[in-house]
Amino acid sequence: MTLEFSIAARDHTSRARAGVIQTAHGAIATPVFMPVGTRGTVKSLTPDELQEHHVQIILGNTYHLYLQPGHELIAAHGGLHRFMGWNGPILTDSGGFQVFSLVYGGIANEVKGRRAAHPQARRSLVQVSDDGVVFTSYIDGTKHLFTPERSIEIQCGIGADIILCFDELPPFHTGRDYTERSLRRTHDWETRCLAFWRATRAGGLPFVAPNPDQALFGIVHGGVYPDLRQRSAEYLRDLGFAGLCIGGSLGGDKQQIREVVDATVPHLPDHLPRHLLGIGDVDDLIDGVALGIDMFDCVSPTRLGRHGAALVRDPARRWRLNVSNAALRNDPRPLDPHCSCLACRQFSRAYLHHLFRANELLGIRLVSLHNIAFLHALMRELRAAIIDGTFGQLRRAWLDARQNAEEPV
Amino acid sequence: MTLEFSIAARDHTSRARAGVIQTAHGAIATPVFMPVGTRGTVKSLTPDELQEHHVQIILGNTYHLYLQPGHELIAAHGGLHRFMGWNGPILTDSGGFQVFSLVYGGIANEVKGRRAAHPQARRSLVQVSDDGVVFTSYIDGTKHLFTPERSIEIQCGIGADIILCFDELPPFHTGRDYTERSLRRTHDWETRCLAFWRATRAGGLPFVAPNPDQALFGIVHGGVYPDLRQRSAEYLRDLGFAGLCIGGSLGGDKQQIREVVDATVPHLPDHLPRHLLGIGDVDDLIDGVALGIDMFDCVSPTRLGRHGAALVRDPARRWRLNVSNAALRNDPRPLDPHCSCLACRQFSRAYLHHLFRANELLGIRLVSLHNIAFLHALMRELRAAIIDGTFGQLRRAWLDARQNAEEPV
Repeated sequence: MTLEFSIAARDHTSRARAGVIQTAHGAIATPVFMPVGTRGTVKSLTPDELQEHHVQIILGNTYHLYLQPGHELIAAHGGLHRFMGWNGPILTDSGGFQVFSLVYGGIANEVKGRRAAHPQARRSLVQVSDDGVVFTSYIDGTKHLFTPERSIEIQCGIGADIILCFDELPPFHTGRDYTERSLRRTHDWETRCLAFWRATRAGGLPFVAPNPDQALFGIVHGGVYPDLRQRSAEYLRDLGFAGLCIGGSLGGDKQQIREVVDATVPHLPDHLPRHLLGIGDVDDLIDGVALGIDMFDCVSPTRLGRHGAALVRDPARRWRLNVSNAALRNDPRPLDPHCSCLACRQFSRAYLHHLFRANELLGIRLVSLHNIAFLHALMRELRAAIIDGTFGQLRRAWLDARQNAEEPV
Repeated sequence: MTLEFSIAARDHTSRARAGVIQTAHGAIATPVFMPVGTRGTVKSLTPDELQEHHVQIILGNTYHLYLQPGHELIAAHGGLHRFMGWNGPILTDSGGFQVFSLVYGGIANEVKGRRAAHPQARRSLVQVSDDGVVFTSYIDGTKHLFTPERSIEIQCGIGADIILCFDELPPFHTGRDYTERSLRRTHDWETRCLAFWRATRAGGLPFVAPNPDQALFGIVHGGVYPDLRQRSAEYLRDLGFAGLCIGGSLGGDKQQIREVVDATVPHLPDHLPRHLLGIGDVDDLIDGVALGIDMFDCVSPTRLGRHGAALVRDPARRWRLNVSNAALRNDPRPLDPHCSCLACRQFSRAYLHHLFRANELLGIRLVSLHNIAFLHALMRELRAAIIDGTFGQLRRAWLDARQNAEEPV
């Protein structure tokens, strides 16, 4: 595996650790939050802006990139790094999450325990077997087959530095029996991913692979059942993956998510980086780091940005400031006086409020960029505190609403 | 007037001239094209990007800024320059164009001779009298009154470097009688604008005016009638305006627009800058410069950008390349190999094509920025040719489709 992970410091009040991941496209200081660039672009932002705002790694979605513009086209253009003009590290998911979300109408709802309205209506869009998944393109209605081997092949064409195993995403409400059967299938798929990925190292792909230095991560499943999570971690830990993710249903609320992560991490090998998939709320990031997670990704900073919700240091309002709120109409302050992002350096809340009231795209850009910079600054602060032994205090300071409430807005 | 205009060179084959306009926020080399920032933002772009791409002056729309966020709020935040973070020159229109477009359902159609579908249906939104115009807000349906004095007051609050007189915009199809009566009303309004503007120099505004160094331009009207244009130019030329615009209906096609401009310019004083309002096609800019115009504005570069039309050096395709066209799907070239904009420096046509197919906002940003950079490069080239005596050749080279056709796309 062409990826190295070293641990630089550990917190003594929790499982938090500060490390460095070396990839072919540069180093990543952990714990790290990576913004999501679903279709080869972190929505509304340029690679230069991401770099200027200290983004260390971005995530691309295999499902979307496969359907449009296609992994072979991306490979022909030198891989996703060159195609999108981002020279830093990239991670791609396997496509599994998106494919299964076609069944459940938004897998995020399932992972987080919110039941979808009409799952049956969409089930016909996907057929699952031990071989893989047949699904229908959201773009043109054509049928496609994702198998473990196909997912790896596509990810080799895209050329990210870190790629993920293809997995099944059973819904939260499916019960223990299905979760256990699904776990066996996912373990089988992950073994096939690893074997196929090793075979591709010797060539044999129908295109020139743009990045010879890819590393493959496994994904621990088992739903909300601690013993299944343990079984999964123990199955995967010695297969030779360069890192391990925690995926699948994590529970119905934040407390259950913490319990599942808390029950899983002790069974993960210490020397591999750990990625908690799809989690990005401020409190979840802080608690995730305390539980021993190194890597996070989530669409939240750009999704919140599109809806005019800016991240601020205020747990009492769930760290969100609604930029369209009338109280900001005449507010000359920046979104966050401590933030050095473009939005906070150059523009007032009043101006950003105006942009959102006027439906101007620049508002989306600026708040998205602020949110990404905000989460980077948070992770950097957490890392520094792990190193200098103040993580426990910092965590309490961030999560204590009474200490942080700003002036009412 | 706190604006100085000097002519640096003249072409000897046409009326083209190269000059410099000095404003309180910097110098403008003419001929100049200014992008439009309707609501205090050039759509999707930051002030830094505009500056990096050599934009010299931007235009703001008084009608939109008055309704949202309001000129008094802008004044309280230090004027539009500070509010939007743009430190270069700004020009505001008077609001007349937008108010009258409520009557005709898109005044641009009228100015360019395209008849609106159902003008009667919208006429009730606006009542015109010699005093001014009562109109209905497109945001919340409230009634508002624009008079010449009110337009100047609002523009003083916004604080642009160049402000325009409030004028009536009669429709193209209205006939000579109404155009002549309208011209008298507009002249009366312009005289009132000038008197009120002079009075405000001594104070008396209900807010602190953010920019004491504003200059007022008059607007020549008279529709498509050369004698009325001459009458208007002669009426306005010695009143003391710092510059003159050519506004109102210019004709039903490009040929008529050229004839109207050609008949008007000789009656304008040589020592004042001349602005042809709302015109921005490549051929219109080139011919406008040849006819003696110094300043242009148009929403076209950003509007085309939002629709995925990139400006290219190819008159055979009306200088437009449709980025969504399937022929670009695999094209590794930049939009324009001669362009140094961000989009052309860092991204391929294939990537931009992908962004538009995927409805990604970054595509809008990049093509808008390219189009603005393209028009700036065109104007800079025209200016240099005026100075070194090659304007005639350059004009022919740009407009000759046979010389410029690129490889088929």
